[in-house]
Amino acid sequence: MLQGLDTKTNQIYGPVKEDLGQVEANLRDLGKSRDEHLLPHLTYLFERGGKGIRPAVTLLASRAYSKDSSKAIIMATAVELLHIATLIHDDTVDNSALRRGKETISNRWGQNVAILLGDYVFAASATFVCDTQNIRVIRRFSETIMDLSSGQLLEYFNSHSIEQNRKLYEERIYLKTASLFQTAAEAGAILGGAPEDVVQALTSYGYNIGMAFQIVDDILDVGGDAAEIGKPVGNDLLQGVLTLPTIKLLERYSEGNPIRELFANREEKGYLQKALDMIQGSTIIEECYAEAEGYCAKAQEAIAVLPEGPALDSLRILASYVTERRR
Amino acid sequence: MLQGLDTKTNQIYGPVKEDLGQVEANLRDLGKSRDEHLLPHLTYLFERGGKGIRPAVTLLASRAYSKDSSKAIIMATAVELLHIATLIHDDTVDNSALRRGKETISNRWGQNVAILLGDYVFAASATFVCDTQNIRVIRRFSETIMDLSSGQLLEYFNSHSIEQNRKLYEERIYLKTASLFQTAAEAGAILGGAPEDVVQALTSYGYNIGMAFQIVDDILDVGGDAAEIGKPVGNDLLQGVLTLPTIKLLERYSEGNPIRELFANREEKGYLQKALDMIQGSTIIEECYAEAEGYCAKAQEAIAVLPEGPALDSLRILASYVTERRR
Repeated sequence: MLQGLDTKTNQIYGPVKEDLGQVEANLRDLGKSRDEHLLPHLTYLFERGGKGIRPAVTLLASRAYSKDSSKAIIMATAVELLHIATLIHDDTVDNSALRRGKETISNRWGQNVAILLGDYVFAASATFVCDTQNIRVIRRFSETIMDLSSGQLLEYFNSHSIEQNRKLYEERIYLKTASLFQTAAEAGAILGGAPEDVVQALTSYGYNIGMAFQIVDDILDVGGDAAEIGKPVGNDLLQGVLTLPTIKLLERYSEGNPIRELFANREEKGYLQKALDMIQGSTIIEECYAEAEGYCAKAQEAIAVLPEGPALDSLRILASYVTERRR
Repeated sequence: MLQGLDTKTNQIYGPVKEDLGQVEANLRDLGKSRDEHLLPHLTYLFERGGKGIRPAVTLLASRAYSKDSSKAIIMATAVELLHIATLIHDDTVDNSALRRGKETISNRWGQNVAILLGDYVFAASATFVCDTQNIRVIRRFSETIMDLSSGQLLEYFNSHSIEQNRKLYEERIYLKTASLFQTAAEAGAILGGAPEDVVQALTSYGYNIGMAFQIVDDILDVGGDAAEIGKPVGNDLLQGVLTLPTIKLLERYSEGNPIRELFANREEKGYLQKALDMIQGSTIIEECYAEAEGYCAKAQEAIAVLPEGPALDSLRILASYVTERRR
């Protein structure tokens, strides 16, 4: 998880670097005590690594109030496992070939293994959460699993509908992304023994950086570089999913909009390029970054009540890093 | 869940009929308070009904010791939801068209909806478990979700291998079937406030009827009537899965066995019929029933420590019913 971090992420992860190492060790050990027949698959999965932002949020949220990170490490492991489980099923649903530069599970072992292995990793995440022994945290976690699948289904059911609007978009990105960030931060705070106002502050922090994180992802999808974002530019639009930039384009040109044409004639890829060109030639991307920054500002505001220290510093840098992310 | 029960099942469900009605109401309400976009799918899913054996086990196990079934009803709902989630994904993996006489989710809405809806129902089951507020029960439940997917993967990885032996078979049917029966009974006992020896007795009861239940399923697959079991006879063998009857056939004829031929030449369906004929013309089916009855006898033995009453009567009838099941 910690390979290849740049200076900024090193700064963010600084106070919880050892804890993150422990999270990695927990992942590596999964399947060793039981289910040895899954070891090759699990090893492949966890070798792949990731940025580890979600577990870092849990660890930092806990560390802001407490020096004892034992329960937060368990929770951070659960959070990362849940994220990984989601990716396995999402890649299966989207028929994606690559993830983090390696073959997806569904591509490598077929969709049946992907479905069942995803289920296994979901369950493993739930089992870790139980070890926190905290009912409030466990319940929030299972609600979050509902949110994640509900959000993906909402996206799927509404794909290629021109009626996807901003309200639906916000609901969807909360469910599919911000909910887990929110729970990651909230659970860290609860397990760190923070008082209720701090728990609320960190819950709000998690929600807001999660919303910003997804908006930036959606900006990169229409304005990024294919090699950098690791998938074709305009992928969402091609899948029939409207995001903030494309919703803005639709709002701006209700008549003769290439998105309407693309949804009506899905094979005509020329409309896709036209839509991307129109977005890139407009102020839409800047406006979207401004909206993402608005969420980050709310995140910064929320954590103003936290005690000063290295954990708070990291949470602040993380909130500013979200909108600087270019891939 | 309660439609079309015969006299025997009516006897079994008698003491918990109202509680089972409450479980059904919980299922119907799912998605109403949130996630309205999933209501059509959830309604379709729960209209399908089922025999409700697993939730009945939870309710009866609780009722054996306690009159307050409020927590057991929540748990029974979780148990049935988990079972349903498993079926959604299993049907997707097996590419099955029908389940309980209705189209499967994957057949009706495609595999993507099936994957994500299965995840949602898994998560909903976990959320119900949390409402029991009992950490021991919650943890057992999440381990059981791991067991279920681990068992399915074990089956998948070993399919078409002639090395599938009795030890592997027992491990697999524990994971994919008995684990949930065991947890259903154990959790009912715990939530009913039973003393530890009764909890252990009911845990053993659940394990044993679960093992018997799967063996009978496997017998029906090679010896039943296609119309009655609702899928083609010999389906397991066709999928490359060895079960108790087919393992027995392999043990009996190590040379020139049609199963070896079938696994080597999967297109030659004649070998399948030959294997089925050999099993049906032998004492294998009786022997398998005897093994299943052995498990049921252990289940009966285990619950001898329970206080006499209608719940115990039902548990006894249920244990004898498992091997009488013909579909």
